[in-house]
Amino acid sequence: MKKLINAPDKVVDEALAGMAAAHPGLIKVHFERNYITRAEGPSKGKVAIVSGGGSGHEPMHGGFVGRGMLHAACPGAMFTSPTPDQMLEATKAVNGGAGVLHIVKNYTGDVLNFEMAADLAKDEKIKVNAVITDDDVAVQDSLYTAGRRGVGGTVLAEKICGAAAEAGADLETVTQLCRDVNASVRSMGIALSACTVPHAGKPSFTLAEDEIEFGIGIHGEPGRKRIKHAHADELTEMLMEPILHDLPFKKGDHALLFVNGMGGTPLIELYVIFRKAAEIAAKHGVTISRSLVGSYITSLEMAGASISLLRLNDATTKYWDAPVVTPALRWGA
Amino acid sequence: MKKLINAPDKVVDEALAGMAAAHPGLIKVHFERNYITRAEGPSKGKVAIVSGGGSGHEPMHGGFVGRGMLHAACPGAMFTSPTPDQMLEATKAVNGGAGVLHIVKNYTGDVLNFEMAADLAKDEKIKVNAVITDDDVAVQDSLYTAGRRGVGGTVLAEKICGAAAEAGADLETVTQLCRDVNASVRSMGIALSACTVPHAGKPSFTLAEDEIEFGIGIHGEPGRKRIKHAHADELTEMLMEPILHDLPFKKGDHALLFVNGMGGTPLIELYVIFRKAAEIAAKHGVTISRSLVGSYITSLEMAGASISLLRLNDATTKYWDAPVVTPALRWGA
Repeated sequence: MKKLINAPDKVVDEALAGMAAAHPGLIKVHFERNYITRAEGPSKGKVAIVSGGGSGHEPMHGGFVGRGMLHAACPGAMFTSPTPDQMLEATKAVNGGAGVLHIVKNYTGDVLNFEMAADLAKDEKIKVNAVITDDDVAVQDSLYTAGRRGVGGTVLAEKICGAAAEAGADLETVTQLCRDVNASVRSMGIALSACTVPHAGKPSFTLAEDEIEFGIGIHGEPGRKRIKHAHADELTEMLMEPILHDLPFKKGDHALLFVNGMGGTPLIELYVIFRKAAEIAAKHGVTISRSLVGSYITSLEMAGASISLLRLNDATTKYWDAPVVTPALRWGA
Repeated sequence: MKKLINAPDKVVDEALAGMAAAHPGLIKVHFERNYITRAEGPSKGKVAIVSGGGSGHEPMHGGFVGRGMLHAACPGAMFTSPTPDQMLEATKAVNGGAGVLHIVKNYTGDVLNFEMAADLAKDEKIKVNAVITDDDVAVQDSLYTAGRRGVGGTVLAEKICGAAAEAGADLETVTQLCRDVNASVRSMGIALSACTVPHAGKPSFTLAEDEIEFGIGIHGEPGRKRIKHAHADELTEMLMEPILHDLPFKKGDHALLFVNGMGGTPLIELYVIFRKAAEIAAKHGVTISRSLVGSYITSLEMAGASISLLRLNDATTKYWDAPVVTPALRWGA
């Protein structure tokens, strides 16, 4: 196992220390309880958004903490859910008095622990809502989920809801917006190679030189099927068709196209995919009016990519464009 | 060779088409002459900055075209210098009447071709200056260079000089600033794995499971030596010590620390390195007052990282902080 780490049980803490050192003006890492908040603390009178999940998917979620996006993120151990205790402490730390929204990717551990944290927070008189994201069209149930998995759409939901909270929307409005975004986004991914979780020391699966995993999850869990490796255009079509038909996207829709790298994929390949995905969208009468290209929800060094397509309306477009100042997403301010 | 591409000879063009589709508000791709400019064209009365180099290092340089950074970028074929013709056309297209600065990484092909382009541009009465970056402390001469290679410091020079040009500095001032930045930055990198150039179809070198290449160039060309793989902290120290001693950085210096991924390295590992590099800087009395962490100058899917350290002064700090709006670097506007 060749990695730029010191020891498997130190990676997460040392990376958090690196984030704290790199972005002191943006974020604060609370090492004793293991969560990240905005440097400036809670926003008085505004809804706060908390997310979290296993580490190994960076920059998600810690890289999305900052003005216009998350108030806090709870990193678990590698590919492991954070604990209710972490989530509760983060929720209490960022509560500005207007309630807290938990955005939770649909993985059983995350869902259960966030539920428990919400119950504990309510005992302390904090209003908490939760929205579970489940945008992955690849599989109905999976190794780690009942129902669909929450993947790339989560990044978009966190950005858009973060902007609404920043603008002063109340808890019910931000919660409904998050449900709407989740209902309007569809995603699917492929892996060309597995990743190696440091504690495991070996790849989570093996693929032959001419094989890819189609419909992969973000932990290397199986997708729909193994297929022969093919040209980028063909693979992009295989991803886009189920995405377009599942919602379904309709002629005249405006959409945000997010082409995401899984961690080990060069940016030049993501742009090759973006080109074809935009072409396919156009052929279906869907206008790509916003875009995101890069590695934002990853599986360590896995080679592969995912596509997320979000149907936009005036409100979500406005909130997408709104200023955001986080370590990983930053514009407009 | 498992890549998300259609054919080796189409990757660069298709990725450019993807960039054009993803960022229509920021950049314009001129396919006939193969260069990228800002969407809005030249800045009247301001110095324009043009860079370029082989493809395969994305987001460098095309991802740095936009307000506050480059006016144009010329992508060559994969790991191959762009042509004087491309550079000349780009120079003419973005000349706003106040002259053009070419920022050129020190690779022999790039240097010769940019020289020729500058001569041709001068024939057309365009004032052109050039600054060659050579911040890599790893090797004195290399496979593709006389003298040191230009690496991560180039990204910082392009950002800082782009801000100065945006602020209205004249050609001599921007040129001198670029020389100053290059004189104040030192870099070095390591590779854990090679990358595969699509045309070649196989990795450019092979490393044993316990070996790394120390002092790697951005094309997989050899570094200082092959060494046994070691803990991240040890490797970070081996990179930081020559960087600190070469300039030399001194007690009381303020610096920008840039930890760069080579394309196949997960972000979590870059933060592990950042943490240790910042610690080492502190031990030498160097304050890290600005940071950049991510994969900005890459070698396709190579696993590895590089560190660049730039001594800052008031002017370079101000220009680093100034607004930038490009596909890959964006803040403050």
